[in-house]
Amino acid sequence: MPQSFSTPRTVALIGKYHSPEVADTLLALAQALSDRGVRVLVEADTADNIAGFGAASGHGLATHHTLGGLAAFEAVDFSVIGDRANVAIVVGGDGTMLNAARKLARYKVPLVGVNQGRLGFMTDIARSDMLSCLDDLLEGRFTPENRLLLGSEVIRGGEVVSANVALNDVVVDKGAISRLIEFELFIDGEFIYSLRADGLIVSTPTGSTAYSLSANGPILHPTLGGIALVPLCPHALTNRPITIPDSAAIEIRILSADDSRVHFDGQVTQTLCRYDSVRLFRSEHSVCFLHPPGYSYFAMLRQKLQWSEKPKGT
Amino acid sequence: MPQSFSTPRTVALIGKYHSPEVADTLLALAQALSDRGVRVLVEADTADNIAGFGAASGHGLATHHTLGGLAAFEAVDFSVIGDRANVAIVVGGDGTMLNAARKLARYKVPLVGVNQGRLGFMTDIARSDMLSCLDDLLEGRFTPENRLLLGSEVIRGGEVVSANVALNDVVVDKGAISRLIEFELFIDGEFIYSLRADGLIVSTPTGSTAYSLSANGPILHPTLGGIALVPLCPHALTNRPITIPDSAAIEIRILSADDSRVHFDGQVTQTLCRYDSVRLFRSEHSVCFLHPPGYSYFAMLRQKLQWSEKPKGT
Amino acid sequence: MPQSFSTPRTVALIGKYHSPEVADTLLALAQALSDRGVRVLVEADTADNIAGFGAASGHGLATHHTLGGLAAFEAVDFSVIGDRANVAIVVGGDGTMLNAARKLARYKVPLVGVNQGRLGFMTDIARSDMLSCLDDLLEGRFTPENRLLLGSEVIRGGEVVSANVALNDVVVDKGAISRLIEFELFIDGEFIYSLRADGLIVSTPTGSTAYSLSANGPILHPTLGGIALVPLCPHALTNRPITIPDSAAIEIRILSADDSRVHFDGQVTQTLCRYDSVRLFRSEHSVCFLHPPGYSYFAMLRQKLQWSEKPKGT
Amino acid sequence: MPQSFSTPRTVALIGKYHSPEVADTLLALAQALSDRGVRVLVEADTADNIAGFGAASGHGLATHHTLGGLAAFEAVDFSVIGDRANVAIVVGGDGTMLNAARKLARYKVPLVGVNQGRLGFMTDIARSDMLSCLDDLLEGRFTPENRLLLGSEVIRGGEVVSANVALNDVVVDKGAISRLIEFELFIDGEFIYSLRADGLIVSTPTGSTAYSLSANGPILHPTLGGIALVPLCPHALTNRPITIPDSAAIEIRILSADDSRVHFDGQVTQTLCRYDSVRLFRSEHSVCFLHPPGYSYFAMLRQKLQWSEKPKGT
Repeated sequence: MPQSFSTPRTVALIGKYHSPEVADTLLALAQALSDRGVRVLVEADTADNIAGFGAASGHGLATHHTLGGLAAFEAVDFSVIGDRANVAIVVGGDGTMLNAARKLARYKVPLVGVNQGRLGFMTDIARSDMLSCLDDLLEGRFTPENRLLLGSEVIRGGEVVSANVALNDVVVDKGAISRLIEFELFIDGEFIYSLRADGLIVSTPTGSTAYSLSANGPILHPTLGGIALVPLCPHALTNRPITIPDSAAIEIRILSADDSRVHFDGQVTQTLCRYDSVRLFRSEHSVCFLHPPGYSYFAMLRQKLQWSEKPKGT
Repeated sequence: MPQSFSTPRTVALIGKYHSPEVADTLLALAQALSDRGVRVLVEADTADNIAGFGAASGHGLATHHTLGGLAAFEAVDFSVIGDRANVAIVVGGDGTMLNAARKLARYKVPLVGVNQGRLGFMTDIARSDMLSCLDDLLEGRFTPENRLLLGSEVIRGGEVVSANVALNDVVVDKGAISRLIEFELFIDGEFIYSLRADGLIVSTPTGSTAYSLSANGPILHPTLGGIALVPLCPHALTNRPITIPDSAAIEIRILSADDSRVHFDGQVTQTLCRYDSVRLFRSEHSVCFLHPPGYSYFAMLRQKLQWSEKPKGT
Repeated sequence: MPQSFSTPRTVALIGKYHSPEVADTLLALAQALSDRGVRVLVEADTADNIAGFGAASGHGLATHHTLGGLAAFEAVDFSVIGDRANVAIVVGGDGTMLNAARKLARYKVPLVGVNQGRLGFMTDIARSDMLSCLDDLLEGRFTPENRLLLGSEVIRGGEVVSANVALNDVVVDKGAISRLIEFELFIDGEFIYSLRADGLIVSTPTGSTAYSLSANGPILHPTLGGIALVPLCPHALTNRPITIPDSAAIEIRILSADDSRVHFDGQVTQTLCRYDSVRLFRSEHSVCFLHPPGYSYFAMLRQKLQWSEKPKGT
Repeated sequence: MPQSFSTPRTVALIGKYHSPEVADTLLALAQALSDRGVRVLVEADTADNIAGFGAASGHGLATHHTLGGLAAFEAVDFSVIGDRANVAIVVGGDGTMLNAARKLARYKVPLVGVNQGRLGFMTDIARSDMLSCLDDLLEGRFTPENRLLLGSEVIRGGEVVSANVALNDVVVDKGAISRLIEFELFIDGEFIYSLRADGLIVSTPTGSTAYSLSANGPILHPTLGGIALVPLCPHALTNRPITIPDSAAIEIRILSADDSRVHFDGQVTQTLCRYDSVRLFRSEHSVCFLHPPGYSYFAMLRQKLQWSEKPKGT
């Protein structure tokens, strides 16, 4: 990332995958940024799905467009965004944000989330507020917040066969066939337990309000340096969720011969074999969200979980 | 605390409250310490309950005794222990340890726990192993571990009306009459939610395997700088446990006119009035446990929760 | 109960305890019933709280009033309602209904619930719909639904020292002081378990959506002949809720010396002593609710628990 | 089933699938039955896996064998067992019993369970006790207990495309790819809710201590005429387990386009398509277990869930 995000000169736009319905929002953003003299990059797949951006954009290399003769922008892929954007604005839901965050993790580009529908935990700016927020963003009044990323490697026969990151969670679970899988958990090299279960969720604070919560996992405040281990339908009733420091080295070793999988943010899936190990650790990278003035994590939580809105007493 | 715990010259003995059945263990410890040239202090109430220590001990001021003509020791109160002991050995269960830890918190005396019955989470040395552990303790082979203490103040009409600490948890709950109480939660001055519930557990990592666990709270590793807020039978099904950083300032403001209480480690109770606030924060003090060689938090957890004991695969 | 509820000639009105704010609703109901030639009884405490009904009502014996020269009614106590009313209309919330149901259980008077505020599980007619529902009620178009009542006796030293009924739940719990109580559970004379916990909820299907639900108890459909046993914060993590047939004889035997209590519908409380037994069984009586045309248990559940309202697919 | 089970003249033996390690037990049982003049049928696959029974057994038609010149028995398939056995003895674990129970459901052959390893919920006779139990069985001292079976049909485009039964549970869940599936639930034709979740467990009382329990479902006593609906990781936190009468007609309608499955007792799996409906109802058949003298459901529960074993008070 060149320069600070505090006065961004180049802003990338990333839309929900295969979703032409975000075209209007993106076009309005591109126009407004262009009007303010900001250079606009549009993620290539996003550009493909937006009529006004043209289907001719070449992936990987920058393609220049004009929008109704007014806005100039380039369709580029994630690596170019990573190299050149000061900020990326993601239009969609939390799933869109997760995908962008993993792809841009190594580049340290701060992310802003705009939601088309109901607000998400990560896409916290309503579409109707976006244009009025732009000046705040461009004048550096957004607040940065760093979120822990999980790094992960799958080890097979002593070799690293794949590596991934996740912003929400890494889930090891049974595939379609078997009811339970069995695996062993190690933390910092120490055997913790062997578990028969539908699976295990390893969740960051960011992911603690997502899948983990539906499995009775604990909500973890984003500033907490912790990782939650939440079993899915464990056979032993005493296997409860545990939160460990994010400095821990976690290893999940598969004992089942049957179908088992590992999922990253519920978006990337890989098949596991017996005696594969999934190693998990705090990534050297983190994700930086930019929040508009007035943002509150607890207000978001209150709204999403429908907690009471106001103090009652006097 | 004078000197380091690593070569303790003065050791205090603290027994389970009103429990003569720990007398033999305490006498054996006193003798063994004395044999090794270590000065022995015995907590005054503990001394009262042990025939060999004599009923004449004056609380508050040191009283000198001899034990069968061999061991010399003094019966003293907690403040003297705090001033003079390098280490305190607590004989009993986790309840005995909680009480000693709160009383000695300000003095930084490291604590060693010996269990008469089943091992506790904090009293992790079996009575049968204690004498063989003494050399390890006296030669500095025990490992120190610091545990977060919760500080607490009750505010009534703008005044601090009481102050306490807790090592496990601070619980605000309904008293005997009403079914639900209502209160508001604030974190760092921000309103979080108002809740109708049987109560709220505010738990340290140490307390996360105690009462909090039975209320579906998350297990928190002791090195995690977090505090769990666990509602008791919340009326709203979406009120789930949340873990926040231990740097947070927590305030619970009582709205109910009926009977409500605050409990510290389940051992000290205070009645609350409508509009009272219970303020909670990380205490400036912490508790230091000394663990014998080979101690493992996870091994303790595995044993107490009856998780599987050994790795299974090859 | 004289005659059938299908063409009620005498209707009782029961209002929320000590709540003048239901006066208007009650007066409107009294007038509308009187207009239709129905005899109106008003529960005595209810009458006391309603200006139009006069404070002179003699409890226990019938007192005649007229309402603005139009409606004739009598202020009577629950036993007179039980003897003479074909139907009782309860205006308030679920708590008001619980109280009326226990008091009228032996008389088999069907109950209709009108809610002033948010609809309750048992008070399922909105105040705004009540007058338009009256013709349905008077012409027999309401549907009866029987609900199981729990009978209960407390046994001390071999003697029955008290007897109660409950429509929602009977809860044995710790009082204000102790953290855990200990008790043994027997079913049909067989020892089931001894439990250390905050308490135990014994819930009917009607109560399964009330306190029991907040303690992770199962929702039981009203037509299910079952009783749920739901531990409150059990010390053993494997103590899970269990549902048994309503033909079972349940006995809870208190082992703790400390403060423990038994609560009936959260409204009547009794102190228990060590070795007291609380015996529970399906009462010979049941409660009959009358529901308006279109009533659906699941629709009520969906609304109260904020489940999705409509089928989505095609 | 010919005749009563109370004095069985023909007994079938069924062993764990593909498990030669049960051969000794089966041979001992066959010999003991033969010694007592009882005709012995051995399930064909079971016979294949037992050296003494010979690999030449023709499936489907009876094949006569002798065992060391002493025991005469026939290797037959399940339909012949169904037609001719008075009792079937199942040697294995609960999984073996589930399979046998589904296959024999229509024939009303009572089942006896012998466990090689740890006792199961359904295989409640220890291998070491089996021979001493045989006289009790043959002289009619075993107690019959009927268990509800779930019937199920999958409807696609208005046609019934498959039919199955389950003794434990029918589970609709996501397959290997997607994180959540979406479906609608109808009971007796009424829309109940639409749910986004990992799946839904529909459990009998028998299944309530199996998979359902690990998903926080309620334990249901076997004599309770209820069916539990237990969501798996529901997206909405207010979707709690509900138990409905077993007279209910349940329909689960799949809305997701992605991979979803239905599992019967975790042993038979079928892929579902969008807009498929899974219909569930109490089967016209039930399963009859025969329990030895002294059997107690609660004792089994206590042992499996490690509840306390004995009353404590006086």
